[in-house]
Amino acid sequence: MVETGVESEQNQRVFRDKLVNAGHLIPSGVKGVYGLGGAFESVVQHLDLFVTKVGADQNAEVIRFPSILSRAAYERTDHLETMPHLLGSIHSFAGAEPEYLELVRMHEAHEDWSRSFVRTDVVLAPAVCYPLYPTASGTLPPGGRIVDLMAFAFRHEPSDDPARMQMFRQREYVRLGTQQQALAHRDEWLTRAEKLLVSVGLDVTRVVANDPFFGRGGRVMKATQREQELKYELVVPITSREKPTAVASCNYHVDHFGVAFDIRTADGEVAHTACVGFGYERIALALFNTHGMDPDLWPQDIKRVLELS
Amino acid sequence: MVETGVESEQNQRVFRDKLVNAGHLIPSGVKGVYGLGGAFESVVQHLDLFVTKVGADQNAEVIRFPSILSRAAYERTDHLETMPHLLGSIHSFAGAEPEYLELVRMHEAHEDWSRSFVRTDVVLAPAVCYPLYPTASGTLPPGGRIVDLMAFAFRHEPSDDPARMQMFRQREYVRLGTQQQALAHRDEWLTRAEKLLVSVGLDVTRVVANDPFFGRGGRVMKATQREQELKYELVVPITSREKPTAVASCNYHVDHFGVAFDIRTADGEVAHTACVGFGYERIALALFNTHGMDPDLWPQDIKRVLELS
Repeated sequence: MVETGVESEQNQRVFRDKLVNAGHLIPSGVKGVYGLGGAFESVVQHLDLFVTKVGADQNAEVIRFPSILSRAAYERTDHLETMPHLLGSIHSFAGAEPEYLELVRMHEAHEDWSRSFVRTDVVLAPAVCYPLYPTASGTLPPGGRIVDLMAFAFRHEPSDDPARMQMFRQREYVRLGTQQQALAHRDEWLTRAEKLLVSVGLDVTRVVANDPFFGRGGRVMKATQREQELKYELVVPITSREKPTAVASCNYHVDHFGVAFDIRTADGEVAHTACVGFGYERIALALFNTHGMDPDLWPQDIKRVLELS
Repeated sequence: MVETGVESEQNQRVFRDKLVNAGHLIPSGVKGVYGLGGAFESVVQHLDLFVTKVGADQNAEVIRFPSILSRAAYERTDHLETMPHLLGSIHSFAGAEPEYLELVRMHEAHEDWSRSFVRTDVVLAPAVCYPLYPTASGTLPPGGRIVDLMAFAFRHEPSDDPARMQMFRQREYVRLGTQQQALAHRDEWLTRAEKLLVSVGLDVTRVVANDPFFGRGGRVMKATQREQELKYELVVPITSREKPTAVASCNYHVDHFGVAFDIRTADGEVAHTACVGFGYERIALALFNTHGMDPDLWPQDIKRVLELS
């Protein structure tokens, strides 16, 4: 039986209401923005420790960026050309007393005071590895680098689907090195991430995927990305069997970031990069959907893997 | 000997360079925005666990909000009137194909494409308790609530001072209840936070403080806030003995948020609120400044308290 779009949206709202009733999601009044309850957060924390264990042999450099990125660095990527609809640009008040008085007047008159704000030097990171590449400009050490990242990313895509939050955590292992190193990292982590998700009882499928490129030109880019198999997603049915949700992705960026930020291998070649990204909130949602709303009642073997008891 | 402003700024840059050389801060090219190295992040994580231990008897509800807040809820606070210069407003692209082509043209011509972005339904949270109050509208349970929060807050105040980051973590325990409950919480945590900071070897002083209110009107508000002793800060010398840095604050909001969001006690009175906030990056910086750049070489008793070894 084929689901209709209406059924799928209904499923999303039913699942969201279940999560809200269980105290896992606290609605904020804005679509896709929630507080996370203690039990939900605990699952995320245990998941984080589990991923660390699975990635321990990588001896990755740990770096934690905040969720913002230099605007100048952002402009050196092609994100504004390819996915402008998802970007969060940060704007601030830069006026003195007269502009301040006008701001207060606008606010009191319920006018759009945000028009008087101007761009800052930062934008919200659309993916947690974006802040890394500009800091890697120059020559990599011999053997390249493996970097361990975790942060909230922001994407402006308000939705009733609890699995499509506007700000959500990604854990990434990023490889910077030769083409061979980048591809090996991507392929190794595709297998590793799949095993990890299976070991917590998720019904995971590996699919070739594409980024949500904007508009007419985007259609061609999506097709090319799929044809070259640059992006794989690990998908799990959450609110739909027909359209399962991506909970992790493994991406080979070719020399995209290497060119943008002049990152070079020890041999002087333009670096290639790849990353695996785990979507923590989505994996937690998949766990709640699969094993039930109360983690205390999850199967013993799942709790053991996540060290939940 | 009295420090000059120039000396103080020099100290900030010297300290920042030490942190960068030790791999604790990774510059992003934007003032006050850094990646945090693994050893720095580990100190923050251990600090977080230590605060949890110190606060365990509070039986607080754990909620984790992302760093964004409903714009409509934000507008119900007086933050735009009092500290507009610190706010980060999130703007996005909302156009179709023609606007997209114009956006790409502006980007290529190095024009300010951000002017074509429009406000979204969210702003960045200026403090991690801001997203909580709108969700607490209505009647509190008997005895009120104690809520445990942790997130990154954003403040637009680019600075060379490593202790003044644009996005940084706050851990808060927030009390919602009667005036008596709110005041007792604030006072209890003032003592508790002071002890916590002393136990990790910091040279901490308790001071009456004020928020950085904007402009001419702000001067009056600062004086009133001090006079009423609504805000205490725990300060530690980091790059200056004359101007020590606030690493934690204990705030009594009177019925400010209770009125704004119609939060009521079980008796139907307007709720009073109070919070303690720990600035994790600042405490970590104070620890590095006090005990040295290598946590392995910190005094044994400090490492024991933080369970660092």
